Amino acid sequence: MKDVPIVLSMGDCCGIGPEIIAKLFKHTAENPRFLVLGDVAVMRRAVLQARLPLGIAPTIAQVESPTERVPDGCMAVMQVPGLPMGLVDLPVGQVHAHAGAAAAACVELGANLCLQGDAVALVTAPLNKAAMSAAGIRYPGHTEMLQALCTTAQGMPPVRMMLANPQLRTVLVTIHVSVRHAIDLITLDNVLKTIQITHEAAQRWGLPAPRIAVAGLNPHAGEEGLFGDEEILHIAPAIRAAQALGIDARGPIAPDTVFMRARHTAEHPGEFDVVVAMTHDHGLIPVKYLGVEQGVNVTLGLPFVRTSPDHGTAFDIAGQGMADESSLRASVQMARTLVAQ
Amino acid sequence: MKDVPIVLSMGDCCGIGPEIIAKLFKHTAENPRFLVLGDVAVMRRAVLQARLPLGIAPTIAQVESPTERVPDGCMAVMQVPGLPMGLVDLPVGQVHAHAGAAAAACVELGANLCLQGDAVALVTAPLNKAAMSAAGIRYPGHTEMLQALCTTAQGMPPVRMMLANPQLRTVLVTIHVSVRHAIDLITLDNVLKTIQITHEAAQRWGLPAPRIAVAGLNPHAGEEGLFGDEEILHIAPAIRAAQALGIDARGPIAPDTVFMRARHTAEHPGEFDVVVAMTHDHGLIPVKYLGVEQGVNVTLGLPFVRTSPDHGTAFDIAGQGMADESSLRASVQMARTLVAQ
Repeated sequence: MKDVPIVLSMGDCCGIGPEIIAKLFKHTAENPRFLVLGDVAVMRRAVLQARLPLGIAPTIAQVESPTERVPDGCMAVMQVPGLPMGLVDLPVGQVHAHAGAAAAACVELGANLCLQGDAVALVTAPLNKAAMSAAGIRYPGHTEMLQALCTTAQGMPPVRMMLANPQLRTVLVTIHVSVRHAIDLITLDNVLKTIQITHEAAQRWGLPAPRIAVAGLNPHAGEEGLFGDEEILHIAPAIRAAQALGIDARGPIAPDTVFMRARHTAEHPGEFDVVVAMTHDHGLIPVKYLGVEQGVNVTLGLPFVRTSPDHGTAFDIAGQGMADESSLRASVQMARTLVAQ
Repeated sequence: MKDVPIVLSMGDCCGIGPEIIAKLFKHTAENPRFLVLGDVAVMRRAVLQARLPLGIAPTIAQVESPTERVPDGCMAVMQVPGLPMGLVDLPVGQVHAHAGAAAAACVELGANLCLQGDAVALVTAPLNKAAMSAAGIRYPGHTEMLQALCTTAQGMPPVRMMLANPQLRTVLVTIHVSVRHAIDLITLDNVLKTIQITHEAAQRWGLPAPRIAVAGLNPHAGEEGLFGDEEILHIAPAIRAAQALGIDARGPIAPDTVFMRARHTAEHPGEFDVVVAMTHDHGLIPVKYLGVEQGVNVTLGLPFVRTSPDHGTAFDIAGQGMADESSLRASVQMARTLVAQ
């Protein structure tokens, strides 16, 4: 493997992103190392905001290219070209167009480095949708922006959200819609595409024949049609179509047992590598149940690994040294796992 | 408290019920002790089927009344009057009308003992719906039968299913219907009634002001109506109505975080005593996630405590000594907890 880093986009500089990155310092030396894409002045302030004990606080070292290494005790930051001036003077905890524009520029550079092979994965610190919008950026979030940045001659890549922690990986067929609307989105095509994206992503993580469990929508996976027919009409046919493509997809399995069966611990090896869930909360309830700190958001379908913490900019506590870096640390760790397998 | 036992109905004698009861023997001496309602010959056979080591196998001792005590080393069994003859000769692992009739008679006696104050709680071993039906019994399961047995001048009591383990209790607004149909059943009246039943049951467990979390239906509990309006139209008004009745009901809370917040461990005290969930799988996914062995089904709304294991008669392994008594043990333990608080 080429010695290229995981890149970390700084996120909205008025939120907790820079601070939680500063708190990750001791993980910079691990392999692959990571490189922050952001504003050097903001990152220097973040080290102070993080209120780290002496010896734990990094020195921010500006690098000019992803391959440039920094001395021990330093955190490498690449100044993203073209950021608005004076980011470090913006009031923390507030929506600002310059912060939105800067956050987007960091993500864009990160995606491009990954696409060029100069970075091995992208971890994104939280951005703020209102700040992005104030900057005239039309993407509601990271996912849509990354899809657009990865557009090819074939168009925008279809993507799916995976939530993962060390015990469980779950990929969602539907996300931010009402349950009533989600039911209508559970079509053969949509379920099959989700299974295919999951399969291809898992192969890239190094699983040659990933075991994919497909959850049902209804209680007992519909109990032979007694409690709903979405399994019969859409989900089971999608599983059969995936199997015909050589994919190890199984189900539909009752939603209340599939996650338990897939849960992986040292004493209890999971039966599946990943679960495809029909709705946002079927998938997220089990991932979050043991604590959100370990929950990581992974975008599948992009040509590179992209992870992010499962929380927002937390403007209410920004700049106070209180922000918890656990989920960002888990995101970096998950990126390492997914590129290394 | 009067020295009255928890009664255990034997369940379908062709299934695993008698065997898993026999395996519970060492728990008979705990307080409240338990008394089996069933067929003495079947229970004697079950002790053999259970293949217990010497010294662990109980002697079945027939008692004539719930207050009669038995010597150490014995398991008390009350012969239920009017059971069909020759139950012990029925082939195990098969549907039989006599087994269905017997199972129903045990439940009926158990309910009556509880209603009369001669038993403190009812734990039911699994019955088989097909066997009940073959016996001409019109109830599809325990719950409906117990509702009918508890009918008063006010009619049948409304009941709700609670699933519980030592970390989490969750009460379901809707159960065995499609998700599409469940959405239509999420009305102000239904949610409010569920909250009220939960509140009254929890007070009887000894919680004077139970903290009841009410989950939303939709992602992020609807995100202010953006992802569905059931929270605005039905769930939030039901919570306000419950609050107006003096009930400590809170929500709607996002389904993906409410269970995590309610989860109770020694290191992490839960924020709530019980969660009201809108659908079967929102509620059951977290209860089952850490393992089904500890999952217990509790019927709320009856005038007494009723628990049961969260599995069926398991005809495929009946009579072979293989059945796992964990969930039945957890059911007895949960009954003890609920009557003792």
